[in-house]
Amino acid sequence: MTRIDHIVHVALGERAYDILIGPRLIDEAGAILAERFPGRRYGIVTDDNVAAAQLPRLTAGLDAAGLGYEVITLPAGEGTKNYARLEQVVEGLLAARLERGDLVIALGGGVIGDLAGFAAAITRRGMDFVQIPTSLLAQVDSSVGGKTGINSPHGKNLVGAFHQPKLVLADLSALDSLDRRQFAAGYAEVVKYGLIDDPDFFDWLDVHLDEIFSGGPARGEAVARCCAHKARVVIEDEKENGVRALLNLGHTFGHALEKDTGYSDRLLHGEGVAIGMVLAHLFSTRLGLAPGQDAGRVEAHLKRAGLPTTLADIPGTLGSTDTLMAAIAQDKKVQRGALTFILTRGIGQAFIEGNVAPEAVRAFLEEKRG
Amino acid sequence: MTRIDHIVHVALGERAYDILIGPRLIDEAGAILAERFPGRRYGIVTDDNVAAAQLPRLTAGLDAAGLGYEVITLPAGEGTKNYARLEQVVEGLLAARLERGDLVIALGGGVIGDLAGFAAAITRRGMDFVQIPTSLLAQVDSSVGGKTGINSPHGKNLVGAFHQPKLVLADLSALDSLDRRQFAAGYAEVVKYGLIDDPDFFDWLDVHLDEIFSGGPARGEAVARCCAHKARVVIEDEKENGVRALLNLGHTFGHALEKDTGYSDRLLHGEGVAIGMVLAHLFSTRLGLAPGQDAGRVEAHLKRAGLPTTLADIPGTLGSTDTLMAAIAQDKKVQRGALTFILTRGIGQAFIEGNVAPEAVRAFLEEKRG
Repeated sequence: MTRIDHIVHVALGERAYDILIGPRLIDEAGAILAERFPGRRYGIVTDDNVAAAQLPRLTAGLDAAGLGYEVITLPAGEGTKNYARLEQVVEGLLAARLERGDLVIALGGGVIGDLAGFAAAITRRGMDFVQIPTSLLAQVDSSVGGKTGINSPHGKNLVGAFHQPKLVLADLSALDSLDRRQFAAGYAEVVKYGLIDDPDFFDWLDVHLDEIFSGGPARGEAVARCCAHKARVVIEDEKENGVRALLNLGHTFGHALEKDTGYSDRLLHGEGVAIGMVLAHLFSTRLGLAPGQDAGRVEAHLKRAGLPTTLADIPGTLGSTDTLMAAIAQDKKVQRGALTFILTRGIGQAFIEGNVAPEAVRAFLEEKRG
Repeated sequence: MTRIDHIVHVALGERAYDILIGPRLIDEAGAILAERFPGRRYGIVTDDNVAAAQLPRLTAGLDAAGLGYEVITLPAGEGTKNYARLEQVVEGLLAARLERGDLVIALGGGVIGDLAGFAAAITRRGMDFVQIPTSLLAQVDSSVGGKTGINSPHGKNLVGAFHQPKLVLADLSALDSLDRRQFAAGYAEVVKYGLIDDPDFFDWLDVHLDEIFSGGPARGEAVARCCAHKARVVIEDEKENGVRALLNLGHTFGHALEKDTGYSDRLLHGEGVAIGMVLAHLFSTRLGLAPGQDAGRVEAHLKRAGLPTTLADIPGTLGSTDTLMAAIAQDKKVQRGALTFILTRGIGQAFIEGNVAPEAVRAFLEEKRG
């Protein structure tokens, strides 16, 4: 009955789990959970947008399977990833008398997944949790790999835990309710996988972009390929001591821009990543590492997807270069004062450079803001 | 130069660490850290009592070793283990620009160790930390084994993480500045190790109690034997899926009493554990599991140490039996509605009983409150 188009296994030993990808998995979650985790109760964490669009589908399935649950609904938006909301979720799970063996369900995009996963990590010193990502960004990136957390006034995701889910259910139909801007923002992370080390995937995206945006079969294939890519990286380097840092391509610039725009609607996370990836390619070109034509191809592809690609594309006025540099320096990837960036030798040839001179970054930013 | 009387190794693979026990380790911490963790910076978390008594000794050694540090000082007391203080410590570590490779130092008793360890666990998704326990309770129990956390309005230690320290420095001289009540409260946890599975240790304590309280050589030996015991248990069951739960002997009753007295000066943690251990023995006797004379020996020994042993010893009025039962039911050790208790067949013969009827506990409590 349950239609599962793709299964990606994340082979992390005793923390191993499956990512299931299919067209109606939210409706089928109750049956799937009842079979995989008999006798558990559930704490569902979601936001008010997703609650309206998807929650009834989930709870209908849980009811049909006879599973008990409580629902905690939060305001939508990046601003929810803060200490007060974390406390609200943890206290809500405790008030619902969920026990160590019970499960938290994160039903939503990256914000809900990060926050609910972190709450699961610290409630009773660790509850199990299930990701049901409803945005493209969450399906291809944030729901996989166990990074959970909230934002600090000092920067994004600076507070959190590595806590792997027990299962990820990526329901492709949830993507149908996203507006084009949200979908495009998630698409930036799709493109990222090609740019890191898979030029064939980038070429495939160039061919299938329209089909992915319109919801054809290429959409599910793209989600599956991204999850498989991410799973490979996470298996190799779960705690980001090495190669996992490549997944931060475009994120150091991106995080600084998100912080500068107040994590607001002015710049979605994926939009910051899109600009950040273009900047990473241009900066690599500037350092003589990569051919300029590759930066051009990246920018053209992201533009076709409707994404911003330059600092000038961000509405409103950006803060000073000093402010941006301070945000870059506070990034988690800083080690002993030197800046670590993901640079590239061209499309599909990203690498970690741990010794970037802050002056070079500053000069580059000054030039790009024009 | 550095005098180390005992070394206990906690063999947890890549999370392995040493517990060093000696007479002046706070003064020598700078030299020890400089040798073991070259090139790191430090975030010291302490409380205002310990800051007055011990902080200058620590910072003098760090200064002499040329190590950089920031100090975050919190109010003393169990009330500090809350969300707001956690946020304060995490934000303080971020504001100090401590990086992933830097170290948090918890200088204080169990409250500081639990809170600072938890802050280290979630700052930048995990910083290393060093425990410098200054209370007997922290030296023999809470600084070893990686349980960190804060309290919830729903109960004690319900929010937290398993996060092992990189090193524990137990300075015996720090115990000289404890008042007798604090020392006795820690001593309850010492006795616990004998009661769990080491009747010879309990006999040894009966002989050496006075020497331990007066600061003779038996004090250091007692600390080392407790740490070795705890290390054995933690190695066998790091995440408390089994045998580690034995360390909760006396804690289910104890936590309920602490909650009922508002985590206040009315009842210190170790005092709650002392009463809880006597209740666990009496309850086991009542169930026909243990000889009554053992409960008598436990009570007599704890009384000699100056500890409370009955509900009537708690100043003020206790809440209703319903309130106490609700606190017991919210304990982390509850599984699927049945109550899990650590019961005993006699001194040194504790065991985990996962199927205790709430009615039996209620009737027992009703009788004991008289």
